[in-house]
Amino acid sequence: MELTRVIVILAQCVWPLWTQVIHLTDIYGTIKSPNFPESYPKEIDLQWNITVPDGYQIRLYFMHFDIEPSYLCEYDYLKVYSDSEELAVFCGKENTDTERVPADNVITSPRNVLSVAFRSDFSNEERYSGFEAHFSAADVDECRDRNDEDLVCDHFCHNYIGGFYCSCRYGFLLHSDNRTCKVECNESMYTERSGEITSADFPETYPKTSDCTYRIDNHSSSQPSRSESLVGEQHLPVCSPGRFCSQ
Amino acid sequence: MELTRVIVILAQCVWPLWTQVIHLTDIYGTIKSPNFPESYPKEIDLQWNITVPDGYQIRLYFMHFDIEPSYLCEYDYLKVYSDSEELAVFCGKENTDTERVPADNVITSPRNVLSVAFRSDFSNEERYSGFEAHFSAADVDECRDRNDEDLVCDHFCHNYIGGFYCSCRYGFLLHSDNRTCKVECNESMYTERSGEITSADFPETYPKTSDCTYRIDNHSSSQPSRSESLVGEQHLPVCSPGRFCSQ
Repeated sequence: MELTRVIVILAQCVWPLWTQVIHLTDIYGTIKSPNFPESYPKEIDLQWNITVPDGYQIRLYFMHFDIEPSYLCEYDYLKVYSDSEELAVFCGKENTDTERVPADNVITSPRNVLSVAFRSDFSNEERYSGFEAHFSAADVDECRDRNDEDLVCDHFCHNYIGGFYCSCRYGFLLHSDNRTCKVECNESMYTERSGEITSADFPETYPKTSDCTYRIDNHSSSQPSRSESLVGEQHLPVCSPGRFCSQ
Repeated sequence: MELTRVIVILAQCVWPLWTQVIHLTDIYGTIKSPNFPESYPKEIDLQWNITVPDGYQIRLYFMHFDIEPSYLCEYDYLKVYSDSEELAVFCGKENTDTERVPADNVITSPRNVLSVAFRSDFSNEERYSGFEAHFSAADVDECRDRNDEDLVCDHFCHNYIGGFYCSCRYGFLLHSDNRTCKVECNESMYTERSGEITSADFPETYPKTSDCTYRIDNHSSSQPSRSESLVGEQHLPVCSPGRFCSQ
């Protein structure tokens, strides 16, 4: 009995070396326990690594689940990971106080990778029929779900399957960072004798990355023609000579 | 004046020959009136034909719309088609009793093709800024939306981006038509002295495309071994000798 325990502990130490890994890169597919719908064999150590393109998540759900029950699933089990994060551990045929089954739940990966590990121990009596699961890539709606400040669009966000892009309100131009909207204000010419110059969108906050030139040219006046250029590189962190800004 | 009218009518007859067609096959993109955000020129006759892969629809929505208004949009207009079906006609800047603008509505194509036609007439005074629209491919959920009898799954339907597939309940096999579920019942052996034979799923309706053999072999009996084969090719339209079925 002691010898068996030592062998089991030794076996568990080298267990990772025995794991058979299956890489899946299709955008949908089926994962089944070995021999399904027949009973699964003992001493199975299998892992499916699913990868879909960037901009997608993975949805995983089960149509059949029947794995030998054990306290906290310490014998046979199915585990679901995304990167190194463990999302779920299942065994049995029905939920109990200590064990969970997938039932009708859909597991969604946080990113574009998902791993499913299935292990049966040495004492399997081949009575349990195993599992059948289905997975598919699901589009991430970055416009709705993305909270990363650097990736948020200044004005409008357009989601498409596999990605997103930004656009700007009428009268604005998209900056080369593809996120920021800058105002179309270059070389505004003022020829009236008097008037008002405002920053774009005034009294609203002026747009980021603006570079506006307001040119005043009173050539219709009786006095000699006079031209002044007020270059307002708004959003500058430091005031330099010849420029007006608030510290 | 009469001459002008004749010229206009003649021009309208050969109009289709002048239409500039732009083919788009990306899964997302932007459509803008010529010169946007500046005013569009007169005598524009442009059509964008958008095609996305099978299994997708096309969503179209507008971020800016300002086309010369006219009664029933008879002068300048934007039309949206899918195949030969006209989905919408727009002009103006606001909805009136006789003219519509797209506003915040999303137009969804019934299939994977969508056309946008934009026309400005000869009298454009170049005051209207035109339009900016965005389109993207959207997955069709065939499991939810498909009503075509031939394409419905017998048991379970699994949608994925760009398509769908069927699967069967535990104990059934998917037929080569990839839709029908047939029962796994071949060569059932009955060795008891007496018993009951039922069609699969009895008393529920038996599955389509079943081909079950029930073999009765009483070799444990004291009488000489006896073997009988009842081949039930259920779903047959005509009863033939040696078979039992209801007319």
